[in-house]
Amino acid sequence: MPPAKSLAQQLAAKQREISVAEFFERNRQILGFDNPLRALLTTVKEGVDNALDACEEAQVLPDVKIEIDREGTDRLRVAVEDNGPGILKREIPNVFGRLLYGSRFHANRQSRGQQGIGISAAVLYAGLTTARPAKVTSKVAEEEAAHVVELLIDTQKNLPKVVSEDLLLWDRPHGTRIELLLKAKYQRGRQSPFDYLKGTAIVNPHARLTLVEPDGTKVTYERASNDVPPVPKEVAPHPYGLELGELAYRLKASNKPTVSEVLQKELAGVTPRAAREILELAKISGKSSPGDVHGEALERLLEAMHTVPLVAPSAESLSPIGPMLIKRGLRNVLGEVRPEYYAPPVSRPPKIRGGFPFLVEVGLVYGGGLPADQPVQLLRFANRVPLMFQQGACAVTNAVQNLDWRRYGLDQKGGQGLPSGPCLILVHVASTKIPFTSEAKEAVAEDPELDKELTLALQAAARHLRTHISRRTRREFAGEKFAIILKILPKLAEKTSALVGKPIPDLTPVITKIMDVVSVETTVAPEGGGIAAKTEVTNYTPRARVLEVFVEMPQELFPVAKFDQAPEGTDAELGRAWWTLDKLVPSARASLRVTFPKGSEVDASDLSWFIAGVDEAHLLGAEPLPGDWDVRLPRAVIEAAEAGLEPIPGSEEGEVDYDAAEGSAGVEDDEG
Amino acid sequence: MPPAKSLAQQLAAKQREISVAEFFERNRQILGFDNPLRALLTTVKEGVDNALDACEEAQVLPDVKIEIDREGTDRLRVAVEDNGPGILKREIPNVFGRLLYGSRFHANRQSRGQQGIGISAAVLYAGLTTARPAKVTSKVAEEEAAHVVELLIDTQKNLPKVVSEDLLLWDRPHGTRIELLLKAKYQRGRQSPFDYLKGTAIVNPHARLTLVEPDGTKVTYERASNDVPPVPKEVAPHPYGLELGELAYRLKASNKPTVSEVLQKELAGVTPRAAREILELAKISGKSSPGDVHGEALERLLEAMHTVPLVAPSAESLSPIGPMLIKRGLRNVLGEVRPEYYAPPVSRPPKIRGGFPFLVEVGLVYGGGLPADQPVQLLRFANRVPLMFQQGACAVTNAVQNLDWRRYGLDQKGGQGLPSGPCLILVHVASTKIPFTSEAKEAVAEDPELDKELTLALQAAARHLRTHISRRTRREFAGEKFAIILKILPKLAEKTSALVGKPIPDLTPVITKIMDVVSVETTVAPEGGGIAAKTEVTNYTPRARVLEVFVEMPQELFPVAKFDQAPEGTDAELGRAWWTLDKLVPSARASLRVTFPKGSEVDASDLSWFIAGVDEAHLLGAEPLPGDWDVRLPRAVIEAAEAGLEPIPGSEEGEVDYDAAEGSAGVEDDEG
Repeated sequence: MPPAKSLAQQLAAKQREISVAEFFERNRQILGFDNPLRALLTTVKEGVDNALDACEEAQVLPDVKIEIDREGTDRLRVAVEDNGPGILKREIPNVFGRLLYGSRFHANRQSRGQQGIGISAAVLYAGLTTARPAKVTSKVAEEEAAHVVELLIDTQKNLPKVVSEDLLLWDRPHGTRIELLLKAKYQRGRQSPFDYLKGTAIVNPHARLTLVEPDGTKVTYERASNDVPPVPKEVAPHPYGLELGELAYRLKASNKPTVSEVLQKELAGVTPRAAREILELAKISGKSSPGDVHGEALERLLEAMHTVPLVAPSAESLSPIGPMLIKRGLRNVLGEVRPEYYAPPVSRPPKIRGGFPFLVEVGLVYGGGLPADQPVQLLRFANRVPLMFQQGACAVTNAVQNLDWRRYGLDQKGGQGLPSGPCLILVHVASTKIPFTSEAKEAVAEDPELDKELTLALQAAARHLRTHISRRTRREFAGEKFAIILKILPKLAEKTSALVGKPIPDLTPVITKIMDVVSVETTVAPEGGGIAAKTEVTNYTPRARVLEVFVEMPQELFPVAKFDQAPEGTDAELGRAWWTLDKLVPSARASLRVTFPKGSEVDASDLSWFIAGVDEAHLLGAEPLPGDWDVRLPRAVIEAAEAGLEPIPGSEEGEVDYDAAEGSAGVEDDEG
Repeated sequence: MPPAKSLAQQLAAKQREISVAEFFERNRQILGFDNPLRALLTTVKEGVDNALDACEEAQVLPDVKIEIDREGTDRLRVAVEDNGPGILKREIPNVFGRLLYGSRFHANRQSRGQQGIGISAAVLYAGLTTARPAKVTSKVAEEEAAHVVELLIDTQKNLPKVVSEDLLLWDRPHGTRIELLLKAKYQRGRQSPFDYLKGTAIVNPHARLTLVEPDGTKVTYERASNDVPPVPKEVAPHPYGLELGELAYRLKASNKPTVSEVLQKELAGVTPRAAREILELAKISGKSSPGDVHGEALERLLEAMHTVPLVAPSAESLSPIGPMLIKRGLRNVLGEVRPEYYAPPVSRPPKIRGGFPFLVEVGLVYGGGLPADQPVQLLRFANRVPLMFQQGACAVTNAVQNLDWRRYGLDQKGGQGLPSGPCLILVHVASTKIPFTSEAKEAVAEDPELDKELTLALQAAARHLRTHISRRTRREFAGEKFAIILKILPKLAEKTSALVGKPIPDLTPVITKIMDVVSVETTVAPEGGGIAAKTEVTNYTPRARVLEVFVEMPQELFPVAKFDQAPEGTDAELGRAWWTLDKLVPSARASLRVTFPKGSEVDASDLSWFIAGVDEAHLLGAEPLPGDWDVRLPRAVIEAAEAGLEPIPGSEEGEVDYDAAEGSAGVEDDEG
């Protein structure tokens, strides 16, 4: 009889390895598959993310089609098809049938998929809920036919199990299609595939996205840009944020002959000079073999790397959307809402956290058809992917909630929480490694460095919003007053004249005296296929004025702008042109016109008109020259000032820099 | 010259397996290691969870010691030591040096650690940040010496790398100690190890926990109970919530000869009769080999299993804390706060979600030293482990926030969000599989079944709170009035009598007339080593009363209670005793006394006194008989009613069942 097993032995006998597929099958909520609605969205999302990544790598304009069909009461057939480079037959099983397998995890550059989990997780879930294999069709350019592979995941081993293989003559030159049958639920509205595609279209204006819903409805988001974003460059890790264990491993794994070479060639930002300084500080000979550095020397080396100033991390590994395309993406998708104001999008310079570069971009849209009495819409994005769930657990949400939006013109209870108003805020975080709170990639984890950048970007966008709201309020108020006077005075004059039997007098001097403003009316309207922007300046003040008119537009519009009246000066880099209106007498009107050719994307918020030569208090419908414009003051203004006509305007510009008080005075300087 | 590689080939060449250790090293925020404060807490938590699980498996009263020492500016040495069964030497490297390895993942029963990730993640983080190995000391009962193993994790392979091995004569008979040096930060206050231990002590009243802080301060939580919770039984999975893929796998992997046997022996809740019905409905022969069931037959089988009624999932795999120990745990730890009220804890019956049984328990404490003007304190627990982070992302928090606490006597803006008041709410979710939102196990994912149970449990606790608050308010109000009358009337009478030169009249009839109440005063006080609970009933109404007095106490106290006056009846199961006070004339007083022996844990909130025989409006200091008590009305009340003295009380009991309106009328019925 064998001796009875001790408790420790019994416990030891139960110890087992857990396959990563088994783990996630049991904890599928972590991957975003905890209910039928979310399961569908996660599947679509993983499919589309992969498709866009593949197209970007191949520098192809993406054309992605998502088809969702009902099959029985609680099942959906989901297909995602792309025109990417395709996948070699031998790689298909691993790419789709194995968790923690992929090409982007080890690459230190921005991409949508980074974990090597996503699409295999969808295959796992489909197999779990319907026991049906995934069907993958893929064709690479150099082969005649496409390969069709049906596969399941062996969860106990986390390995693909190929069920069938076939060849297919496909009409596409190259591309991939994956089809899955899964327990899922289709629903329109918030957090639907439709919503997800809309978000994807905004931040991927170069992609054409088509969704076929179960009832046959077909929605297409057309491209708003024909430029494929460049493939971000793979860069070596930067020593900032490098941990001791990681450094030890890198030294051991390197095949460079000396420590000095490892520093310079396998890490980013270390110049030969910095390498010398680091090694000197760490008291290590540059000629030591990398494998010989351990213990205290290793610790000194890391400390020295964190002490010696290094070249800042490069942004080449990142792929920001950029202000122009953020605006274009928003405009493309928000068309039906017709927002009244697109704030100039903010794209912050790259920073570094834990060795990984990241950057933050913010877009902000206001007014028009956006609902005024509800919380603002927050669109969160990470590496050009919309984040659809777990808004409450996300660092992006926190940053928005912690800003006092009352200072920028939005309602917000107690200066905390999501503000209310007809406003949509887009936040994009791009990084070679997004710190997601879980493998479902739905929320970004808190981090002080990230929070700082988010706050600075949000503040910069919020300042534009504040300016817009205060301008609008002022204009509305003065405009109402003006309208009343123009309406009532003539009637009053008419009646009075009739009563006393005298002719109706000329009212202009009276109106002029009451109003005492220079009135500016600007319009932007389609005209003969193109677009015409016009401004009309009327002098309703009792004296003659020498006025300087400035127009500012996005840099890329400037070369195609045509001016009816030749400007007195232009600055193409800043997108500015200006004119002098000489001696505009009381009641006189002058107009200026700029036209843009057919196909131009211009709306009212693209053109800003500024007037110099009149005090802000006497200006209606345009802005005085901003105080921070670093331009030599135009001739007319100087002359006028010298003649004592008006004080030099602009210096009293109303915008107080609240943010300086919040410790972020450097915002404007950091940009550029 | 080899031909140039195509793009698809280049991409394929980059495809690689990702080791799970590598994955988590890069995504350490997912495991709870994203900053030095959280890294410390996660390390302590994983260590203590393992220690408590091990002790429970060995049925040993846990004695766990945590030592935290500073080493350099940003490093801490953390040691967790237990008196568990110890780990066999050959298992030490795998248990501590390999992610996704463990004994509890495949066991279908409640335990703290379920993922096989926790403590290895701490070893991984320590290695990453300090490059120092973990030092594990472990001794099993049957060996003379302890083994000391130093190890690191080879992240590329996710395998342990043993650095040194040694033997040690240890003074413990058995146990395990793990020591780690890691980049971390110690801080007291919210989310500190101290806070974590406090929470752990509440829900593990059988554990002794000692913390030695870096400055040498030693804090010990002594046991409040000497009963080790029983080891939850491993049960077969229940067919409810079983998915198709899982069923297919179970059939294929089974070594039973027939499908019928698989159903009955490898699944829970399927009786022979249910198995017959299932197979009949699915049109499958019971004698078929399990491996032969696939395709449509498999789908029919699953559907039949979800159609035929089965035995409910057993609670044997769960280890609830239980109402008595929840209260004892709270009292043990909240001693210094001296709350005025402990609501009877709620322990819901087990339910099932996705095939896994779970249950919800709620404790609620009110008043005393708890801050009145702040949000309530919410203590979240999963499988007896405190959840310290991500409160906002947790289903437990959501359930608390979605309840309208204004109906239960707490302040809450708009009936949504965390309520305010001197209140602490403890919520414990126990399950064989907790659906955590990430591997850091800090928040529970949303789930409709779970949400329903959370809401029902919270409502049940909240109803007790409402009763307490309304009693207190009524008592305070009436008591003030009474006090004023008793003080002012005699003085008034004295002065008036002196003025008119007459003797002071007997005021009792007057007081009786003004007050018109039966006044009840109850006290609980230590007495001769034991505890005495007393009630005094005074008839301040103008007529004689036949009153019935009920006392109710926790079931476990009943056997040790001694009654000075023999009760007219008792119900040991409900913990009730009652007496009849015959013909209590106006101004007469009667008293009843119950004593408990030395060592009893009794306080005022354990005993509830109820009075029948007087209308609620005329009762001060006690409650009328609750309307839902299913007791035959005692003799005196019936007689009194028949004599037309008073209406039968209790039927107008003031508590409206708000919850019925919220669609949860079944609360009371579900319990018991």
